Amino acid sequence: MTRAELIAQIRAKKSYLCVGLDSDIEKIPAHLKDAEDPIFEFNKGIVEATSAKCVSYKPNLAFYERHGSAGWESLAKTMDVIPDECFTIADAKRGDIGNTSRYYAKTFFEEYNFDAVTVAPYMGSDSVLPFLEFENKWVILLALTSNQGADDFQFFSDGNTRLFEKVLNTAVKWGREDNLMFVVGATRPKMLADIRSIVPDHFLLVPGVGAQGGDLKSVANHGLNKDCGLLVNSSRGIIYADQTEQFSQGAARAAADIQQQMAATMT
Amino acid sequence: MTRAELIAQIRAKKSYLCVGLDSDIEKIPAHLKDAEDPIFEFNKGIVEATSAKCVSYKPNLAFYERHGSAGWESLAKTMDVIPDECFTIADAKRGDIGNTSRYYAKTFFEEYNFDAVTVAPYMGSDSVLPFLEFENKWVILLALTSNQGADDFQFFSDGNTRLFEKVLNTAVKWGREDNLMFVVGATRPKMLADIRSIVPDHFLLVPGVGAQGGDLKSVANHGLNKDCGLLVNSSRGIIYADQTEQFSQGAARAAADIQQQMAATMT
Repeated sequence: MTRAELIAQIRAKKSYLCVGLDSDIEKIPAHLKDAEDPIFEFNKGIVEATSAKCVSYKPNLAFYERHGSAGWESLAKTMDVIPDECFTIADAKRGDIGNTSRYYAKTFFEEYNFDAVTVAPYMGSDSVLPFLEFENKWVILLALTSNQGADDFQFFSDGNTRLFEKVLNTAVKWGREDNLMFVVGATRPKMLADIRSIVPDHFLLVPGVGAQGGDLKSVANHGLNKDCGLLVNSSRGIIYADQTEQFSQGAARAAADIQQQMAATMT
Repeated sequence: MTRAELIAQIRAKKSYLCVGLDSDIEKIPAHLKDAEDPIFEFNKGIVEATSAKCVSYKPNLAFYERHGSAGWESLAKTMDVIPDECFTIADAKRGDIGNTSRYYAKTFFEEYNFDAVTVAPYMGSDSVLPFLEFENKWVILLALTSNQGADDFQFFSDGNTRLFEKVLNTAVKWGREDNLMFVVGATRPKMLADIRSIVPDHFLLVPGVGAQGGDLKSVANHGLNKDCGLLVNSSRGIIYADQTEQFSQGAARAAADIQQQMAATMT
């Protein structure tokens, strides 16, 4: 997907919501567990109920890998029911030496047709560059994550620059605003201002709204740019809003509620 | 596998060789490509030919994921033909927020029965700790990798400590010598002395010998400790030593050659 297409979709839907498909066999409604492919049936219900209110879906690979080859089948079938206009993100946090990263890229971009994949920066340029060689495909590089453990290394500083800033400074030379985004956790909205001073125009993928405690208004205040420039993810707050047979209606309501809040920040 | 079992195997075989199963459909011998599961047939041949000379196997997940659900089937079947005494490493470089890392851990430790999984440190403690909760299972944390891109962030310094040293210093508080190892690239053997001063007793997984240019003698000089403390990986140098129908004999010779060099360093 091109940057222009993503922006057009955001404007049309007045939404920059990404729905995280962290679809957990232990948490999906009981009536689905006898289906031939419970994870797929759950995702299909969630996607059909939410796709008018969100612009992106982000399956987290851990929840699919957990079921081995069957999980990868569920993922492939899920990709088939996500409308073409939605931006799809493989939340895989991959990254390896060059020849290996190339295969991860082929998997997610060619075999599974994702628009984007999340990549971990620790191994540096040759772990990231192979993902940037695919036309109209995107890297979403971890910069400042939403979890507590982010404090362990991401704030490590040489006195002037913290590691997450070093990652931003370095990676903007590897990719462009139309093929590179960054992960910035919603649990640290005030950092967004610092981050926007380094990457004013790039899109940011912001997880951590909802279950992890992040606040949408604060994220919007510090993170929106002229093209919106945000994809804000909610996973558990939407997909488990209702854990009964009416799960899809619950997800639809939760997504609509966030979309309305987002529309208000875009005026 | 316990640390004592690993050390006993190393002593019995006079080897600390890990064979990297980076099994690439484009590089395996042509006669295997018509098999029902070429990657598995290739791995089976390699394992049968090398298991007397190595102590560990390390499938790199990128090469399996590339084939979607079929690739995960090949991986499961490969695990079934690796002898029980061999230490198995899922080279997956995973790492995510706590609840997600837990699922990655379950996948590799419970579903696929690996002894160890490689983990990326960028997201900090809660991305690593869930992997350390499984009895007799191991985390192998990236510290200093063998690729060029390692220079981008791993040497970032606060004036006293470089990032890879900060990772070592921090992670030794998370795990123990019997459930935590570190990745240290063979392309930087002189750094091994610095690393041994921080983690004298931990095992180190050393990739990069062979195709990536690392030198075994230099690694042994700087890295061996009283319990050996090394697993040195070779992938392409062994598994593609011969790309004809005699590939397994070629791999056997290449593994035996490295094993003999290793035995000489252990006297």
